[in-house]
Amino acid sequence: MQTGSTVTFDRLKAFIHEAMTRLGLPDQDAMTVAALMAEADLQGSDGHGVSRLPQYARRIKAGGFNVRPDIRVVREHASTALVNGDNGMGHLVMTRAAELAIEKARATGIGWVNAQFSNHAGPASLYATMPLKHDMIGLYFAVGNANHLPPWGGLDMLLSTNPIAAAIPAGREKPIVLDMATTVAAYGKVKTKALRGEMMPVGWMIDSQGKPLTDPKRAEEGMLLPLGGMEAGYKGYGLAMIIGLLAGTLGGAAMGRDVIDFNHDDDSVTNTGQAIAAINVAAFGDVAVFKAAVDALVRDFRGSARIQGVDRIFVPGERSQETRAARTRDGIPIAPALMRGLDELADELGMAKLA
Amino acid sequence: MQTGSTVTFDRLKAFIHEAMTRLGLPDQDAMTVAALMAEADLQGSDGHGVSRLPQYARRIKAGGFNVRPDIRVVREHASTALVNGDNGMGHLVMTRAAELAIEKARATGIGWVNAQFSNHAGPASLYATMPLKHDMIGLYFAVGNANHLPPWGGLDMLLSTNPIAAAIPAGREKPIVLDMATTVAAYGKVKTKALRGEMMPVGWMIDSQGKPLTDPKRAEEGMLLPLGGMEAGYKGYGLAMIIGLLAGTLGGAAMGRDVIDFNHDDDSVTNTGQAIAAINVAAFGDVAVFKAAVDALVRDFRGSARIQGVDRIFVPGERSQETRAARTRDGIPIAPALMRGLDELADELGMAKLA
Repeated sequence: MQTGSTVTFDRLKAFIHEAMTRLGLPDQDAMTVAALMAEADLQGSDGHGVSRLPQYARRIKAGGFNVRPDIRVVREHASTALVNGDNGMGHLVMTRAAELAIEKARATGIGWVNAQFSNHAGPASLYATMPLKHDMIGLYFAVGNANHLPPWGGLDMLLSTNPIAAAIPAGREKPIVLDMATTVAAYGKVKTKALRGEMMPVGWMIDSQGKPLTDPKRAEEGMLLPLGGMEAGYKGYGLAMIIGLLAGTLGGAAMGRDVIDFNHDDDSVTNTGQAIAAINVAAFGDVAVFKAAVDALVRDFRGSARIQGVDRIFVPGERSQETRAARTRDGIPIAPALMRGLDELADELGMAKLA
Repeated sequence: MQTGSTVTFDRLKAFIHEAMTRLGLPDQDAMTVAALMAEADLQGSDGHGVSRLPQYARRIKAGGFNVRPDIRVVREHASTALVNGDNGMGHLVMTRAAELAIEKARATGIGWVNAQFSNHAGPASLYATMPLKHDMIGLYFAVGNANHLPPWGGLDMLLSTNPIAAAIPAGREKPIVLDMATTVAAYGKVKTKALRGEMMPVGWMIDSQGKPLTDPKRAEEGMLLPLGGMEAGYKGYGLAMIIGLLAGTLGGAAMGRDVIDFNHDDDSVTNTGQAIAAINVAAFGDVAVFKAAVDALVRDFRGSARIQGVDRIFVPGERSQETRAARTRDGIPIAPALMRGLDELADELGMAKLA
């Protein structure tokens, strides 16, 4: 069982907000970032929430993030836009991009917005779900912030775990939310294993001789396996490449050898690229009919006969929704190693500790 | 080595064209279908080209395809449309949908078109590549025409291999073209193995007890494994579901339990759904700069250091492009079992045999 402390969502958000303010972000921006980061932890995206705060703080202090960015639209058409994030925090850039995509989808049926000069923005699902409340489908693509994946058969780290997320509105059921790295495991999960002192399963990573690598502390010697693993990893490799082209190259952002490993670099401009699309369900038919169809599908999937030994069938997003409910009730667990890092940060910033 | 005959692309196209005309398609429609089907074989999509002709013919004769469809736009916004295929051949419906998406992308930056009452349209890459010559990116999503995939942990066949394809224009390099089923192997590959009398590798399918199934003649007793296999198959399951929602449910087409298994049903209306998006590169920046960036990426990937024993690194689409070149030069191989089926069809239709 988890041994560290737990904190409430509100306390976590307030802590991040204060830290971000002390690091120089305007109050409203600090609030936006804090709400999204705490939401990441609430839903169980442990590798992409407050665990990144010490790193973000280091980067801000080193001048690697612009705390007062002029986030602006540099190209715009009826249904597309390119947002220049001015090296601000990715959370701010992609919130702006999502709002713009939603606005365009309302007018034309679909909006697709790319960001350049953005930064790490946390879990993809945060942004893919933004269109949901407007009865829109959200799609999100990102170039990851460190290359851990070579081309299929290769050794050069030219790709990141480039995630894709999709969110589909439902009626009485919860929305369907897929958020997946195009590797067998996301690098954030590797970092979480390291923080927890746990080993990785065989199949997440290999070393440069192609042998399984299971110690997350040795992660930097190895490479992630693309989705499909040894058998069909060329598919995961292909997906990672296409997502990188859509999220990065299309918007003039970094991709391939240009990607900065922000785990080992606190001050270079990353020129991170992300893309978000909002698709207006009403442009294709009756929204209530669509939602009823999604509900029926979810129930059919959930009610499927099961392979012996399987207790339950999950629909994408259900685990996160349940983690969210459990953590709202019981608090958000903070692993001891992470808490030590957050305590040090609080001391550095001259503010109260998280717990 | 291949033992059957080979035919030229032109001969194959003429054969399909004549068959389609004799089956009742208008000349121009028969030509469109024939060109796309022969192109599928030319590029090596053996499970989705002329190997489907006997089945299409059976379906047309049984009244399962409408040979004189009124393909029409039933919903339209500046950047989106819903096309009703009137149960015509999918090749015709998706050619129309692609043209419309391209037109909208030219005006607004992106076009996204769903089809309902469409049918099997062959390999996804045929349509994803249509925007390329307009300097646009193509994305294609389809609901497969037979459910061979249960939800993760389940036994009910509620999903098909729902493919995704993406095509990215390059400059001096060939375009990057990904075309993948969201299962470890596409069902068309299983059918090709059966036609060739070969066994499948372990990992493509399992039987209802969860044991590996390697005899393609027993395929109907088993289920395909989603991309990710036993280790991370929940990701492939999630992708298959999202693609089905985008390509099917969004456009009011069949998905889940409503999908007709057209391998075992020659006369029901399938209400097949597909979706195509065209993204105008010029809406995001300078096209030449984008293409140069894609070229540089392709060269970096191809030039990567390699794992010992790997001769060459492929970029998505390269194998198909090379197959296309080889078959243009040497002819398209037709397996003996398929040739027998085509000979029978030619006799039935009172026309000259293929070879």
